[in-house]
Amino acid sequence: MTIHIDADRLRSDFDELAAIGGTAEGGVERLALSPAHLEARRWFLRRAAAAGLGTSIDAAGNHSAILRSASPDARTFLLGSHLDSVPNGGRFDGALGVVAALEVLRTVKEHRLDLPVTLEAIDFTDEEGTLVGLLGSLAVAGVLDAEALAAPRGGRDALLAGLASAGLKEARLGEARRDPRTLAGYLELHIEQGPVLERARVEIGVVRAIVGSRSLELVFEGASAHAGTTPMAARRDAGLGAARFVDRVHDAVTSGFPGAVATVGHVELEPGAFNVVPGSARVLLEFRAGSAAELDRLEQRLLHEARAVATAQRLDLRVQAVGRWEPSPLDASARAAITAAAASLGLSSIELPSGAGHDAQALAQVTRAGMVFVPSVGGVSHQPGELTHWQDCVNGANALLHSTVRLALEAPT
Amino acid sequence: MTIHIDADRLRSDFDELAAIGGTAEGGVERLALSPAHLEARRWFLRRAAAAGLGTSIDAAGNHSAILRSASPDARTFLLGSHLDSVPNGGRFDGALGVVAALEVLRTVKEHRLDLPVTLEAIDFTDEEGTLVGLLGSLAVAGVLDAEALAAPRGGRDALLAGLASAGLKEARLGEARRDPRTLAGYLELHIEQGPVLERARVEIGVVRAIVGSRSLELVFEGASAHAGTTPMAARRDAGLGAARFVDRVHDAVTSGFPGAVATVGHVELEPGAFNVVPGSARVLLEFRAGSAAELDRLEQRLLHEARAVATAQRLDLRVQAVGRWEPSPLDASARAAITAAAASLGLSSIELPSGAGHDAQALAQVTRAGMVFVPSVGGVSHQPGELTHWQDCVNGANALLHSTVRLALEAPT
Repeated sequence: MTIHIDADRLRSDFDELAAIGGTAEGGVERLALSPAHLEARRWFLRRAAAAGLGTSIDAAGNHSAILRSASPDARTFLLGSHLDSVPNGGRFDGALGVVAALEVLRTVKEHRLDLPVTLEAIDFTDEEGTLVGLLGSLAVAGVLDAEALAAPRGGRDALLAGLASAGLKEARLGEARRDPRTLAGYLELHIEQGPVLERARVEIGVVRAIVGSRSLELVFEGASAHAGTTPMAARRDAGLGAARFVDRVHDAVTSGFPGAVATVGHVELEPGAFNVVPGSARVLLEFRAGSAAELDRLEQRLLHEARAVATAQRLDLRVQAVGRWEPSPLDASARAAITAAAASLGLSSIELPSGAGHDAQALAQVTRAGMVFVPSVGGVSHQPGELTHWQDCVNGANALLHSTVRLALEAPT
Repeated sequence: MTIHIDADRLRSDFDELAAIGGTAEGGVERLALSPAHLEARRWFLRRAAAAGLGTSIDAAGNHSAILRSASPDARTFLLGSHLDSVPNGGRFDGALGVVAALEVLRTVKEHRLDLPVTLEAIDFTDEEGTLVGLLGSLAVAGVLDAEALAAPRGGRDALLAGLASAGLKEARLGEARRDPRTLAGYLELHIEQGPVLERARVEIGVVRAIVGSRSLELVFEGASAHAGTTPMAARRDAGLGAARFVDRVHDAVTSGFPGAVATVGHVELEPGAFNVVPGSARVLLEFRAGSAAELDRLEQRLLHEARAVATAQRLDLRVQAVGRWEPSPLDASARAAITAAAASLGLSSIELPSGAGHDAQALAQVTRAGMVFVPSVGGVSHQPGELTHWQDCVNGANALLHSTVRLALEAPT
C-alpha cells in the first residue's frame, strides 16, 4: 500500500494560512517580518504543536516543526520553504512548501515510519527579499553575506525595523548556522512560477539547477537637446540608444541562448520631458542562465551589443555590475529520488531549471538539496491570480513525502 | 550713412540683465513671475525710463517701453521677446530680444527717426511655460485659452501663486488684448537654439514659419511576468514594444520626413523592477513639422508604426493626444524686410523654420509678424552653456533695427 498525505488536512491548513494577510483580490501580502508574516509564523508553530511535533525558532528567525528520530545522533533532514510574500503576492508561493512540509512530518509520525533522520519542516525568514533575500536559508548555510546586511535590498531602516519587531539581533543572525555534518539533506516543494510544466502537461517538475543571474546597470550618455530645434542628424539621443539596446538584447537571447532569459525591467531617461532629447538613459538589465559558462558567454554578447549601439549613436557607455547569483545545480541523488517518487505515485515528471531563486540554492551549498515543482496556471506568480490546481498541490505534497522517505533512507554521500 | 545700434550700451544692458537670477554655472534662472523674473522686469522699466521712454504694464503683466509717434492715431509696432527663463537656463534665450528691442527704441529716438508708428519694446509674461506658456503674448493676441488656464502646464497652484506675486488677477488677464487694428506689426530677435545657422556659416536667419507640434501619450500594455521563470517566447513585454517603437519613430522620420523631428523624451515601464518583465510602457512622443499637412502625414505614419509593433508583440495600445500647436507661417513682408535689412548691413541670411515655439506665433494670428534668428554656438540652448557670439548679437540687433524701420515705413496690408 502506498502512503499518502492527508489531502483534506493539507487543504484546511492551506486555506487557514491564506487568510493571514489575505488581500481583497484573493492573494496575500505578508512582507518579511511584517505583522501578517509574524502572525503566519505563529500559526505555523501552533499547528505543529497541535500535531505533537516539537517547535523551535533560531537566531535568524527561522521557524521549525520537528519530528525527532529515535536515534539520538541522527542527522536532520530539512523540508522547507517560506511564509513571507512579495507585495500583493499570491497564496501559493512559499506557503505551499511550508504546509506540505508540515503535512509530511504529520504523515510520517502517524504512520510511525522509522526513518534514520530527524525531520524538520522549516519556514525560512525573508526569502522574497523585501529585506535582504534568502536571509534565513543563507544564515542556516553559514553564508549570509555581511555586505548584503550592510546594504540590503530593502534598505537598512526596513531591515533593522523588521529584525526588531521579530525580536532578532543582527549581530546574532550568524548563530543560525548549522554544521553541515548534522544535515542529511534538504527538499523543497514549490510552485513552478512559469509555464513549462503546464505547457508540457506534466505533473511533477524535478529541478535540475537553480539558474544564476547577473544584473547590470548600463548608462548611455548622449547630449540632452531641444526637441524642436535639434535636427535628427545632429542628435546624440541616449533614449534611442537604450531602445536599440533593448531590441538587441531580445534578439541576441532568443537567437543564440535557448533556455536563457534577459530582461530590461526599468529604463530612465533624463531629463525626461516631452520636449527634450534625452541626454542620458539608465537601463537595468538582468539575465539568467543555467551555468556559469553560459552566463559568461551571454554577458559578453550583451556587452558587445551595448557597445555597438553606443558607438553607432555616438553615445558614451558606463556599465556597472549590481548583482550576481551563481547557478546552483541541485543534487543528483535528490533528483533521482524525486523522479522515482513521482513514478511510484503514477505521476509524470520532467527535469527543468528553476528560473527563480529559492532557499534551496542556499542549502545546496552545504547539503544534498532537491526541489519538487508543481504547475502554475498560466505561469503566473507574484500576483493575486497565482494559482496551482489543488490536485497538483496534493501531488506535490505526496511527491515530497515519498522523495523524503527515499532520500532519508539513503546514506548521504 | 547706415544707422547702427550702440553695441557697447547693448552689451552693458545684456550683462546687467544676465546678473539678475544669474547662476554659478554662468546661466540664469528666472522662472516666470519668480522674484528674479520680477526683478528683471523692474530693471527693464528702469532702463526704459532712464532713456526717456514711456513705460507700461498691462493686465497680463507684460512690461513695455514705449516710443510714441508724433501722430496721435499712429498704430503700434511691437518689438518683443521675454525675460523669463527655463529652470537652469541660459543668458540669451528671450533676454537678447528684449534688450535689443529696447536698444532699437533708444537708437530710433536718438536719431530722431520720424516713423509713422509708435514703437513698443515688450517683455511678454511666461513665454517658457513654467506656468502656462506664451501667456502674455496669447493675451495680447486675444487668444489666451481658458482651458490652458484651468489646467496649466505648471499646475494651478504655481499659476495662482505667480499671478498673486505679480499683482495680477486671473479674471482680468484678457484685458491685455490689443485691438488688431491698433497694431502695425511685430518683430522678434531671438537666438536660433539649433545648429542650422552655425553649420551653414550664415549670420542672420529669417524665420519662414514656426513649426507646429503634436504630443501623444502612447501606452503599450502587455503582461508583467517573473523575469526568471517566464521564457522569452511566452512574454508580452511592453518594454520591448516601447523600445521597438522608439527605434521605428527615428527611422520613419529620418527616412521619410526631412525637416521634421520626432522625439521620445520619456518612457516609463511598470512595475519597473530588475526582475519583472514590464507589463506596461508609457511613452511620451512629440513631433514637429512646418505644415499641418505634413503633421497629419507624420502622425499617421507614427501611429501605423505603433500599431504594427503592438500587433507583433501581442500588446494592447492606447493613444491619447496631449498637446497640439498649429504651425505659424510668418508674414511674407516681414520676411522680405528682414532679408533686405540684412543685405543692407552686409550680413548673409537664409530662411529657416523655427523648431521652437515663440511669442511671434501668438502675434502672427493678429498682425504682420517676423523673426530674426542669430546663430547659437553648437545649437545649445536651455542650458547655462547657451552662447551666441557677441558680434552675432550686435548683428541681430542691427538687423532688427533696420527691418523695423523698413516694415514700419510700409503700410500694413
